[in-house]
Amino acid sequence: MILDDTWFTEVCEDAGSAFSLKINSKLHEEKTDYQTIAIYDTQQYGKLMTIDGLVMLTSRDNFLYHEMLSHPVLFTHDTPGDVLIVGGGDCGTMLEVLKHENVKKVQQVEIDEQVTRLSEKYFPELCVSNNDPRAAFFFEDAIKWVRDAADNCYDVIIVDSTDPIGPAEGLFSKPFYQDCLRVLRPGGIVVQQSESPLIHGDIIKSMVVAMREAGFTNTQSVLFPQSVYPSGWWSATMASAEAPLTQFREGDVRNKPFSTRYYNSDIHRAALSYPEFFAEYIK
Amino acid sequence: MILDDTWFTEVCEDAGSAFSLKINSKLHEEKTDYQTIAIYDTQQYGKLMTIDGLVMLTSRDNFLYHEMLSHPVLFTHDTPGDVLIVGGGDCGTMLEVLKHENVKKVQQVEIDEQVTRLSEKYFPELCVSNNDPRAAFFFEDAIKWVRDAADNCYDVIIVDSTDPIGPAEGLFSKPFYQDCLRVLRPGGIVVQQSESPLIHGDIIKSMVVAMREAGFTNTQSVLFPQSVYPSGWWSATMASAEAPLTQFREGDVRNKPFSTRYYNSDIHRAALSYPEFFAEYIK
Repeated sequence: MILDDTWFTEVCEDAGSAFSLKINSKLHEEKTDYQTIAIYDTQQYGKLMTIDGLVMLTSRDNFLYHEMLSHPVLFTHDTPGDVLIVGGGDCGTMLEVLKHENVKKVQQVEIDEQVTRLSEKYFPELCVSNNDPRAAFFFEDAIKWVRDAADNCYDVIIVDSTDPIGPAEGLFSKPFYQDCLRVLRPGGIVVQQSESPLIHGDIIKSMVVAMREAGFTNTQSVLFPQSVYPSGWWSATMASAEAPLTQFREGDVRNKPFSTRYYNSDIHRAALSYPEFFAEYIK
Repeated sequence: MILDDTWFTEVCEDAGSAFSLKINSKLHEEKTDYQTIAIYDTQQYGKLMTIDGLVMLTSRDNFLYHEMLSHPVLFTHDTPGDVLIVGGGDCGTMLEVLKHENVKKVQQVEIDEQVTRLSEKYFPELCVSNNDPRAAFFFEDAIKWVRDAADNCYDVIIVDSTDPIGPAEGLFSKPFYQDCLRVLRPGGIVVQQSESPLIHGDIIKSMVVAMREAGFTNTQSVLFPQSVYPSGWWSATMASAEAPLTQFREGDVRNKPFSTRYYNSDIHRAALSYPEFFAEYIK
């Protein structure tokens, strides 16, 4: 069948596939200095935010992505006191990071302030912790931010970016990872959203190569479902110079004083498991 | 954007979502006594088979589904000598089952012979083991087949069916599970494809209830990605009267004398891990 204009459709050219959501109405659209942001009210997925025609998040299933970008890395680090979020304008990652009591300070550096302003309006459930005194918001180029940052000032860097085209391209490069390594304290870990294991293996592979060339000796991807992204299967990739990435504070996960909808200790371990084709491809 | 008629689109009404594949050409379409089967040549996913407008499989990613429907249950059972496949007309499950040397006999009971004939033509890679002397093919109603089968004659039953509407509806019911339990030997296990954990929780829940009412005391779902099915995330559910379903022959998996593309021992354990919302929902 051919879908009419009551559907939002994102085409993934790489995979010759497309994903659509049934729309009740378009609530907002604007062209910022960086990109075009649109907000839709969908029939079954709640609100939908798109940037340049690509799905960023929906109310219904963003918990998968935000939990898996935050909790695995934060429970892998022993004492993640200082956290930097690169991108993350919708504040969903900030919300999850702030659930960790041992986090003392979180800086979110998003290039496009409108992403955050629109999230406050249309995804208020993701912004409920934005007034936490540990949270600080900056609307600047995160590549420059990390380049200018002092040595050894973060424990964890979470790169919650768009795809490696447009403004986010420089975030998938060796110079950026070298800066990350420099600004991380000993034992520090960076984690970055890293596209689909099924259809973007080349991106993950070149990212891992760049991380290793930058001086990170350990890399470990985390795999999880994400129904509104191409292939419905997504990844984040952690990198560290010292910290082992296949162990985590499992007891702390079991006793965590906050709730999650996807993440738990079994899921953490599960997410570290590589399918045969994936292990072969990125080894 | 609106997709033109060079795309095949499946709408999932339950989720207000749709998935599309770019098509080079339609290779075949026929109405059988049971359903309408179509075969397409896609741009990036190889061949595509649809039944009544719903995606059944593609060349590119059917390995995910077929491996996860077969290997977890066969490595959970100690000695899966006699196996029944209910449905499974494309023979992809048969191919995986026959990789197990301890399997002595596999009967595939598919209601629609044309599914198998078209798979032989368009998915020949799934049919390469069809001449194995352990394999037997029957084109009959599997509900009647199981009803008429002798007591204690199978070790494993794999229900590789379409969705619980149309011909497959009776496969998701207590009377069918009672028959499965009767024809399984002590220690026997049934596994059934059980839709999306994200959008079909109600189906999985009612299926688990029906299995337990039928006399199965253990149930365990297996979760895995499947990019061409709604939400990109799928499940199979195992049930047994005695056999523990959270343990498996892990050493045998590590030393398996055949290759897989997705499945391995880490993935087996990962697939048994329930996300928080899922554990809560089906408990």
